[in-house]
Amino acid sequence: MSKQYDVIVIGGGPAGTAMASGLKAQGKSALIVESDLWGGTCPNRGCDPKKILLSAVEAKQAATNYQGHGLAGVPAIDWPALMTTKRGYTDGINDGTLGGLKSQQIDTLHGQAYFRADGELTVDGDVVTGTDVVIATGQRPNILPIDGHEYFKTSTDFLDLDAMPKRVTFVGGGYVGFELATIARAAGAEVHLIHHNDRPLKNFDPELVKALMANLTAQGITFDLNVDLKQITKTADGLHLTDDHDFALTTDLVICSAGRLPNDDQLGLENVGVAYGRHGIKVNDHLQTANAHIYAIGDVSDTPVPKLTPLAGYEARYLTGELVKSGAPISYPVTPTQVYASPKLAEVGVTTAQAATEPDKYRVTSLDMTKWFTYYRLQTRQALAKVVVESQTGLIVGASCLSEIADEMINYLTLLIQKQISLAEMQKLVVAYPTPASDLQYLY
Amino acid sequence: MSKQYDVIVIGGGPAGTAMASGLKAQGKSALIVESDLWGGTCPNRGCDPKKILLSAVEAKQAATNYQGHGLAGVPAIDWPALMTTKRGYTDGINDGTLGGLKSQQIDTLHGQAYFRADGELTVDGDVVTGTDVVIATGQRPNILPIDGHEYFKTSTDFLDLDAMPKRVTFVGGGYVGFELATIARAAGAEVHLIHHNDRPLKNFDPELVKALMANLTAQGITFDLNVDLKQITKTADGLHLTDDHDFALTTDLVICSAGRLPNDDQLGLENVGVAYGRHGIKVNDHLQTANAHIYAIGDVSDTPVPKLTPLAGYEARYLTGELVKSGAPISYPVTPTQVYASPKLAEVGVTTAQAATEPDKYRVTSLDMTKWFTYYRLQTRQALAKVVVESQTGLIVGASCLSEIADEMINYLTLLIQKQISLAEMQKLVVAYPTPASDLQYLY
Repeated sequence: MSKQYDVIVIGGGPAGTAMASGLKAQGKSALIVESDLWGGTCPNRGCDPKKILLSAVEAKQAATNYQGHGLAGVPAIDWPALMTTKRGYTDGINDGTLGGLKSQQIDTLHGQAYFRADGELTVDGDVVTGTDVVIATGQRPNILPIDGHEYFKTSTDFLDLDAMPKRVTFVGGGYVGFELATIARAAGAEVHLIHHNDRPLKNFDPELVKALMANLTAQGITFDLNVDLKQITKTADGLHLTDDHDFALTTDLVICSAGRLPNDDQLGLENVGVAYGRHGIKVNDHLQTANAHIYAIGDVSDTPVPKLTPLAGYEARYLTGELVKSGAPISYPVTPTQVYASPKLAEVGVTTAQAATEPDKYRVTSLDMTKWFTYYRLQTRQALAKVVVESQTGLIVGASCLSEIADEMINYLTLLIQKQISLAEMQKLVVAYPTPASDLQYLY
Repeated sequence: MSKQYDVIVIGGGPAGTAMASGLKAQGKSALIVESDLWGGTCPNRGCDPKKILLSAVEAKQAATNYQGHGLAGVPAIDWPALMTTKRGYTDGINDGTLGGLKSQQIDTLHGQAYFRADGELTVDGDVVTGTDVVIATGQRPNILPIDGHEYFKTSTDFLDLDAMPKRVTFVGGGYVGFELATIARAAGAEVHLIHHNDRPLKNFDPELVKALMANLTAQGITFDLNVDLKQITKTADGLHLTDDHDFALTTDLVICSAGRLPNDDQLGLENVGVAYGRHGIKVNDHLQTANAHIYAIGDVSDTPVPKLTPLAGYEARYLTGELVKSGAPISYPVTPTQVYASPKLAEVGVTTAQAATEPDKYRVTSLDMTKWFTYYRLQTRQALAKVVVESQTGLIVGASCLSEIADEMINYLTLLIQKQISLAEMQKLVVAYPTPASDLQYLY
C-alpha cells in the first residue's frame, strides 16, 4: 500500500461510511478501514435488529391490549422464526455495506488500524498513509470486571440468540437493559433486571421511569434495585449471581447491560498525541482531536450529545464540510432519546429536571393521556406525558412521553421544538384526524 | 324563548361546538341547536368509532404480517366485544358534549331548526332570534334512489352492528366503502364492493388505488366494478342485488356508501335567500352565504376543500374571528386526506395528476419502499409512495402513500410541505431512529 490518501476513515459504521461517502462526493480520496462487520453496530447488532425483535413484541402487545375488547387470542413469539427474520435483515448488512462502498469507488481495508506516526497507520501490519484521519470506531458493550465476568454475555449475543433461555438476567438498567428485558419477557423468559442503585434510566424523568417500571413489573419483569453484583458462579442449576449482602439469583443467561465503552484503546492514539478516556476521544467543537490532523465522530467521540445513529450521520456531514473548508463550530439540533421498551419512553429538549431549576423560565405540565381517544382506541393502559413550555413565548421546548407510541409523539414534538411551531401555528396545520399528530394541539 | 342572541349556531358537531365555544370565549351570546346527537357525525358515527373498529383490524393485521416470521397465532375479531369497546366511547359523546357546552354557559336547544325569516328561526316550533346565524349541520349518507332502496343500510348502521352478517355488500367505492369493507372482511364477512365505474377513490392516484385494491382483493374482498346497481329485492336467501345486465349477488347486508349529502334541505333556506345545492350551502371566501347574516361552516358548506373534521374546527376558528372583526378571506392550509383501509392510502398537497399537467414545474418520484427497513421490520408486504417535488426549489409539495403507516407518513409530509422544510433542513433535524420520521430524508 503506497497510496497517500486525503483522508483515512477508521470504522465502517454509520459515521464512517457517511464520512467516506461524503468525502468521495467532494472529490477527496478516501480509505475506509473496518476491523469487524461492515455497517457497524447499528444495523448489525444495535438499533435495527433490536427494533425487528421489538416489532413482534409490539404486535403481540397490540393484540394483548385488545383481549376481551375486540380480539380473541394472543399470538405467541416464535423465537427461532423471529431470529430468522432478524437475520434476514442483518445477514446482508456486511456485504451490502462493503458493496455500497466499492460501488462508490471508495477504497476499503479490513483489519485493525493502529497509529504508527502522524499520518501513518498500520492495518493488520500493512502501512497506509493519509493527510487526515477520521476515527469513527464506535463503542462496544462494557463488561463489569467482577468475579466470573467470563460468564457475561452482551447485547450482541442476545440479539443473535438461537433459543430464548428459561431465565434471563440483565445487569445494568440503562436503555439496553430495559429494551432487551422487554423482548425477553415477551418471548416468555423469566426476566430479572439488576441495577446498582434505585435510579435506572437516570437521564429520564424519574416519575415516568417509575411508571414504566410499574408497567414492566406487571408484565412479569423483576427489578432488583440497589444490588451491586459481585460474583457469577456456574452451578449445576445454572449461573448463580450474588452481591456482598443477601442477594442471590440463579439464571440461565446473564447479559451485561452496564453501559458501553468507546473503541479508543487499541488504536495507538498515544503515538499521535490524541487524548482519550472512559467517555471517548476528546474533541473540540470542530470534532478535532488534540492532533490537528485527526478527528473523531460518532459514538467514539467525547461530545455533549447522546450516542445515536442519526447524530453520527449529522457529525459526518458536518465534518465532511469542515475537511473541505473549515467554518463554524458544530452546533447540534434538539435530539430525542428513547427507550424502546413496551411501552416506550422518549424525551426531547429541555428536561423536567432542568425546567425545575428555572421555574420562572419554564412551566411543566403533566398529562395523563390514557383516556384520550388515541389511547382508548389502542386500548393501551398507560399514556403519560410531561411538556416543558417556555413561559415567555408559550413555545414547547421539551417533552417526555411514556406510551406505546411515544416514538411517534417525540418525533412530532422534535419538529415542533426545532421549528419553533406555536400553538397558533399548530392550529393552522391540518393533519390527518384522529391521529397522534392531531393530538399535538392538546399538549400546549 | 324571547332572548335575542348575538349568534345562533345550527348543528352541534365539531364545527358548531367549536364555533359556539369560540364565540362564548369572545364574549358573544350564543345559542346552539342540534336535532340529533350532540357531538355530530365524527365522534358518534364517523371518524372516531370507525378508527376504534379499525384498531382491532390493525392489531390483527400486524399479527398476520408476522405469521411464520416471529409470531404464531392470529387473533380473531370478536365483534360483539369490539362493539362494546366502540360503544364504551360513543355512548358518552352526546351527554359529554352537551355537558361541555353547558359548563361553558352556552345555551342549547334540541330540535329541528327552520328559518322563518331573517334572524328568526323555529326549533321544533319554538321561536328563537339571533343577529347572525351559523349553519353547521353537516352531511348524511346518500341513499341511491333505486328499486328496493329501503333495504339499504348506511355507515351509521354498520358502525353500530350487533353482529357481523355472513355476507356484506357495499355500494359505492369512496373512502367510506373501502374503510368499512376492510373492517367487515377482517371480521370474517364475505365482502363485495360494488362501484359504478372502474375508478373507485377517484381523487387518489390511480396506480396506488389499483395497488390497494389488489391488496384488498388478496384479503378476500371482491370488487364488482362497472356495475350500475338497479334493484334490491328481498328473497328467502337474503337480499338480491341486480343491475340491468347480468350482475346478480345475494347478500345479508347492503350498505349504501355512495357519497354523502349536505344537511341543507330541511332548514327553510329558501325563506332567507340562502343558495344551496347538492354540494352544500354556497358561501363566499368569508364563509358567508347569499344572506349577509348567515354563514355556513364544516361539511354542509360548499367549499373547495375536503369535508374533514379538522377543517371544521379550522373554519370555526376563522369564522369566530370574522364575527368579532371581519378581515382577510379564509385561506386553507395544505390538507391531507386518507382512506383508513388496511393498508392505508393517504395524499397531501399537489397530486400526481396535477403534477403531470405541469412537467416543467414538478417532478414525480415513485418509490417502492417495501424493502426499506421500516417496512421490513413490520413485515408488511406493501409500501408505495409517490412524491411530488417542485423542480425549482427542490421542496416536497405533494405526496401519496400506501402502507400500513401511511397516516403517520402523511402527517410528517404535511408538516414538511406546510413549513417548507428542505432536504438540507431535514438532514439537520435529528429524529428518533429508526422510525418512519427518519425515513423522510429518503423521500426527497
